[in-house]
Amino acid sequence: MIQSIGYAALSPQSPLAPLRFERRELQPNDVVLEILFCGVCHSDLHVARSEWGPSRYPCVPGHEIVGRVTGVGSAVTKFRAGEMAAVGCMVDSCRSCPSCREGEEQFCDQGAVMTYGGPEKHTGGITYGGYSNNIVVDEAYTLKVPAGMDPAATAPLLCAGITTYSPLRHWKVGPGQVVGVFGLGGLGHMALKLAHAMGAHVVLFTTSPDKEADARRLGADDVVLSRDKAAMKAWRNRLDFIIDTVSAPHDINAALNLLKRDGTLCQVGLPPAPLPVNVFALTGRRRRLAGSFIGGIAETQEMLEFCAQHGIVSDIELIPIQEINAAYERLAKGEVKYRFVIDMASLATNADA
Amino acid sequence: MIQSIGYAALSPQSPLAPLRFERRELQPNDVVLEILFCGVCHSDLHVARSEWGPSRYPCVPGHEIVGRVTGVGSAVTKFRAGEMAAVGCMVDSCRSCPSCREGEEQFCDQGAVMTYGGPEKHTGGITYGGYSNNIVVDEAYTLKVPAGMDPAATAPLLCAGITTYSPLRHWKVGPGQVVGVFGLGGLGHMALKLAHAMGAHVVLFTTSPDKEADARRLGADDVVLSRDKAAMKAWRNRLDFIIDTVSAPHDINAALNLLKRDGTLCQVGLPPAPLPVNVFALTGRRRRLAGSFIGGIAETQEMLEFCAQHGIVSDIELIPIQEINAAYERLAKGEVKYRFVIDMASLATNADA
Repeated sequence: MIQSIGYAALSPQSPLAPLRFERRELQPNDVVLEILFCGVCHSDLHVARSEWGPSRYPCVPGHEIVGRVTGVGSAVTKFRAGEMAAVGCMVDSCRSCPSCREGEEQFCDQGAVMTYGGPEKHTGGITYGGYSNNIVVDEAYTLKVPAGMDPAATAPLLCAGITTYSPLRHWKVGPGQVVGVFGLGGLGHMALKLAHAMGAHVVLFTTSPDKEADARRLGADDVVLSRDKAAMKAWRNRLDFIIDTVSAPHDINAALNLLKRDGTLCQVGLPPAPLPVNVFALTGRRRRLAGSFIGGIAETQEMLEFCAQHGIVSDIELIPIQEINAAYERLAKGEVKYRFVIDMASLATNADA
Repeated sequence: MIQSIGYAALSPQSPLAPLRFERRELQPNDVVLEILFCGVCHSDLHVARSEWGPSRYPCVPGHEIVGRVTGVGSAVTKFRAGEMAAVGCMVDSCRSCPSCREGEEQFCDQGAVMTYGGPEKHTGGITYGGYSNNIVVDEAYTLKVPAGMDPAATAPLLCAGITTYSPLRHWKVGPGQVVGVFGLGGLGHMALKLAHAMGAHVVLFTTSPDKEADARRLGADDVVLSRDKAAMKAWRNRLDFIIDTVSAPHDINAALNLLKRDGTLCQVGLPPAPLPVNVFALTGRRRRLAGSFIGGIAETQEMLEFCAQHGIVSDIELIPIQEINAAYERLAKGEVKYRFVIDMASLATNADA
C-alpha cells in the first residue's frame, strides 16, 4: 500500500486534522501524483460536516487537484513520471452505461466514484481526496495540465471551472447571446470569465453592491443588483441563458422571468432546501429550469485546453494546510476572492502537524 | 354592432346566467361564426371565479369554439360563408414582435389577446368567449376545420389538443421514445392520444386505480400508480419526456426522477401555488423542468390536420348550456370523461333563458 498523509475530518463536528492513511498499490492503469496544490470547494465543507446527508469518515476532502506524476503503472500510456497532471471530482465510473460511453461519466448509471468518500473497489474502503501529499488514480480519470498554466490557479478549474464550463457549452453559449450569472463566488467568478471568453454579453446578478468593479474586471458587461426590483424589471425577458451559482435560498422566479422565450436557467449551486417554482414563470415564455453537475472527463480536458488558450485561471488565495479550518469559516461567510487553494508544500514540511 | 347572447359570470361569486351583449361590427379582415359547439375548459372556471387573479366582468368564457362562417369582411381570403371554422384561446396579438413573427403568437411580447377577458381594441371593451351564439374574429386567428371531423368532439382540440400537441412537437416526441403523461383529465386524455399517434411508448401516471382500462383504450402502453413508491422506483431514469397536466399540488420531484439524463418534464397544468423543486433532482441527470402554453396559430392548424389524419378527437360529454353551472361543479371534482362540450343549439332555442 502507498502511505499518505493528509487532513481529515473524523466526524461531522470535528475540525480537520492531520491523518496518516493508506492508498491502494499502483495498479497497471494507475498513476500516482505528488499533490502540489488542492483547491477548497464549498462541497468539501458540506461533505466534511455531513451537511448533504451522512458522510463516511475519516473524510479527506479535496477534488481540485494539481500535481506531478511520480509513478505510473505498467499499462499506462498517457502519462510519464515528471509530468504535471490533475484530478477533479471523479476517479472512476462503470465505463459501460450509456452516460459513460457518451463521455458523461458524471451521470454514470452506477454512480461515478467521487474523489473522496466514494467506494474504493481495490481496498474495499473509501476514496480519500486531495488535502493530502499524494493520490493514486486510473489514468483514464486523470487530466493533462496544458503547458504554461499556473499550477496553483489551475487547481480550481477541476471543479469550479468544469461545473460552469459544461453547462455553458451544453447550452451553446456564444457570441450574440446575453448570459446572466447569479452569484459571484468560486463558481460565479469562473462563469464570468468563461462566458466572456465564449463571446457572450455577460450580466452579473448579485446582492452585493461592492462587487461591481470586480465583476467587470472578471468579464461582466453589466452588473445588476438582484434586490433592486426596478433594475430586475428592466432585464425581464432579455436573457438567453442563466447560470445560477447561488446555493443559499433565493427567488428563482425573479430569475426565471429574466429569460427570453425558450431560455434556460441552469442551477449549478446546490440549495439544500427545495426552491419554490412558480409554474407561470415557466409556461409564460416556455422557459426551462435545469440543473448541471460538473462535466465529463473528455470535457474537463477540453475545458483545460480552452482555459490555456484564453489565459484563464482562477483568482485564488493561497493558504498553508494548517489554515484550512479558518479558511472554512471564511468560506462559509463568502469571504474569499475567489477560491482558497492549499499549497501542499506546507504539508510536506509539517508532516506530523 | 353585432348582437350576441351568451352565458356570463357577472362576479366571481355569481353562477353563469344568460346575457345579451354586443360584438364589434365586421371589420375587413373579420369573419363572423355561428357557434355550434364550445368546449368547457378548466380555465373557464378559474377565470369566471377570478381564481387566477381578478377577472374583468361580465365574463363570457369559452375558447374551444367550432362553428359555421355566416359572414366575411371585404378583405377576407381564407374563408367563405357556409364553411366550418374554429377559434381557440387567442383572437389577436401584436403581429410584429419576434414571437409573433415566428408563429409563436401565444408568447407575444405585448401579450396575446385572449378569446375572453382580453382587451377588445375596436370597441374599447373586453373580448367575450364562446359560450355564445356567435363570435367575430380576424381571419388570421381563425382555424379551418378539416373535412370529416366531428364538430362537437373537435372543439376541445382548440385548447386541450393544442396545449398537449405543442410541447410534444416542440420536444420532438416520436418512435423509440418513452413518454410519461401525468394526470388523466381533459389535457391528459389528449396527451395519451397524441403521444400514441406520434409513435412513442406512452406511460400514464395517475393516482386513480380505476382509470387503467380507460388509459389503455386512449393510448397508454403502461399505467403506473403514482402513489405506489415501488412502481415509481421501477420507472426511475427511464422516461425521455414527461407532460404533466396536473394542476393540483403534487410531488414534482418524484416525477423528475423518472427522467433519463437530459430529459424534460413539461408542465401544462397550472398549479396556483409554487411547486417545491429539489435541485438535486435536476442536477443529478441534467434534467429540465419546463412549461408550455397552448400553441401558435399555424401550429394549431397543423394539430387539426394531424388529428384529422389520425382520426383523433376528444372524448366528450355533450351538455345543453343550461347545465353549465352543474358541469362546473362536476369539473371541479374531476368528474368528466373527458371534456364537457356545450351544444349551442340549446342556446338558440332558449334565447331568453
